[in-house]
Amino acid sequence: MQDEPEVVVLRLGHRPGRDDRMTTHIGLTARALGADRALFVGDASQSRETVDDITARFGGPFEAEVIESYRPVIREWDGVVVHLTMYGERVQDVEADLREAHAEKPVLVVVGAEKVPFDVYEEADYNVGVTNQPHSEVAALAVFLDRLFDGRQLDREWDGADRRVVPMETGKRVVDPDE
Amino acid sequence: MQDEPEVVVLRLGHRPGRDDRMTTHIGLTARALGADRALFVGDASQSRETVDDITARFGGPFEAEVIESYRPVIREWDGVVVHLTMYGERVQDVEADLREAHAEKPVLVVVGAEKVPFDVYEEADYNVGVTNQPHSEVAALAVFLDRLFDGRQLDREWDGADRRVVPMETGKRVVDPDE
Repeated sequence: MQDEPEVVVLRLGHRPGRDDRMTTHIGLTARALGADRALFVGDASQSRETVDDITARFGGPFEAEVIESYRPVIREWDGVVVHLTMYGERVQDVEADLREAHAEKPVLVVVGAEKVPFDVYEEADYNVGVTNQPHSEVAALAVFLDRLFDGRQLDREWDGADRRVVPMETGKRVVDPDE
Repeated sequence: MQDEPEVVVLRLGHRPGRDDRMTTHIGLTARALGADRALFVGDASQSRETVDDITARFGGPFEAEVIESYRPVIREWDGVVVHLTMYGERVQDVEADLREAHAEKPVLVVVGAEKVPFDVYEEADYNVGVTNQPHSEVAALAVFLDRLFDGRQLDREWDGADRRVVPMETGKRVVDPDE
């Protein structure tokens, strides 16, 4: 988010067709919950387009990019690398350290597919489990970002939106942000 | 969770084939993050089987059920009905009320597909937005449950598991829970 070291979500193991929707949800979750960029490894141009379209309509800044290889991104990351995995340390045990680290350094959040190569576990500064149960990489990312930002991402503002949803007890209200 | 009024996740609008993976992720997220049951509306037997299989291996109690119609469930719910929607009130504004309500009453969390019929908005006691941005029903459910339970679901114990993941800084370790 603005005025903070950046948070980037790196999505590994995208399989075109089969994973389009999950990858899109990872990108949209990254955007909605305070990350600055999402990197999709592999042929994920459809997911990138969907995320770009939402950013164009609902605002940014947020960047989605398709990249060919994750290894240089992890290896050259100038900050903290967090890999979300059900085998990792418990999020409740490491989140305070991670918030402290993020106050000073960019954070790369690596979100895997079913089989993550072992070098990712080794290169990560933290392997973190949002529970040690099998569930969903989207759910794990969402809880992780909410805790990393300590909820303040819910108050972020959006630039360049052409619409804004007004919170309502019942019903749907969408307005022009300039009105 | 044990010793608390139950929390049930109701997944609307399942389309067989197209939605299997999202519905499965909703069920697994419900289980991992403290809900007691998941109800899938429509022909979601494949998702139910996957969730049941995870419960058999990693423990419970957790129930997944396939139902035909959501309307009687919502109408006859003896407790609080929360519908997660990007058009709803901000989660940060209502979560304290919901935690208080859940101390005494069961909570039904309704998670929709793209088009949710208007009667769901009207029948819900709360329409709640985990951000007023479009992202992912799985992400919204995850953040909502984490906040409803105030993180204590991360410490829940599992009965009847035949394996347990031991949190690790690096690598994967799975043990027999009785050892």
